[in-house]
Amino acid sequence: MKKRKPAKAKKAGRKSSSRDRAFVLKRTAMKQKSAAKSELQYLPWEQVELEDINPLFQRQLIVGQEVMLARVLLKKGCIVPLHSHANEQLTYILEGALKFWIDGREIVVRPGEVLTIPPNMPHKAEALEDTVDLDIFHPPRADWLAKTDSYLRK
Amino acid sequence: MKKRKPAKAKKAGRKSSSRDRAFVLKRTAMKQKSAAKSELQYLPWEQVELEDINPLFQRQLIVGQEVMLARVLLKKGCIVPLHSHANEQLTYILEGALKFWIDGREIVVRPGEVLTIPPNMPHKAEALEDTVDLDIFHPPRADWLAKTDSYLRK
Repeated sequence: MKKRKPAKAKKAGRKSSSRDRAFVLKRTAMKQKSAAKSELQYLPWEQVELEDINPLFQRQLIVGQEVMLARVLLKKGCIVPLHSHANEQLTYILEGALKFWIDGREIVVRPGEVLTIPPNMPHKAEALEDTVDLDIFHPPRADWLAKTDSYLRK
Repeated sequence: MKKRKPAKAKKAGRKSSSRDRAFVLKRTAMKQKSAAKSELQYLPWEQVELEDINPLFQRQLIVGQEVMLARVLLKKGCIVPLHSHANEQLTYILEGALKFWIDGREIVVRPGEVLTIPPNMPHKAEALEDTVDLDIFHPPRADWLAKTDSYLRK
């Protein structure tokens, strides 16, 4: 008779199955749900967690119901690889300079300047200086909230 | 188009009819439609029209598809009367101080601080100092775009 291994040990040793994936997706959905805030929030940025995503990229997130405001700190030389997302994005540079490759153009966005990026438009960026960037997303970036944004973590 | 000017002159002399109102609504809808931008936009704030809404309240609007970013300049003493709207709002104070009466609380929002205001939550505000305020709305404020925001124009 075949002896049943303890479920957890068995699971740890094998590759991910569709069942595991369903579990991860469910957990991610729960996280997203808890992150979407429909109540009043009063948040000084200095009280918002600063995430280290890679050595040149840090960010803070304030999440509303349908809108997310991100304060992104990029060190000079930081490259955000070409990517796209279904979320509409508005980028407002407060300090520094962020060069975009987007829609066949090269645009350097400087303090006091805004870029509106439609959904699904591929874009790449490079910080030409240490940069403080406000990013507004609709809806909130599920991949940023679930930390599944592997394109930034290399 | 120019040939139709006499009609306008005639129109100016009489009171508004339901036909005029239908025309205004149609024109407003067209304006809103044209205001919602689904293309890439690169906009320095200094190139965005500054609207004088009342002697203490000026604003600039950058309108995306589902999100609007407003840069609002309030002079000390400016009062935004109690109002509410279906749009979700995030307020980020860059300079000055803006006191809110909201959800039974009084909250002074200062530079580096953010307030997330859920849809339909009544709020009143007063600028305690000359203030630079970023307001993010989802969806874009139709009343601000159509200039039907009479609560601000008194």
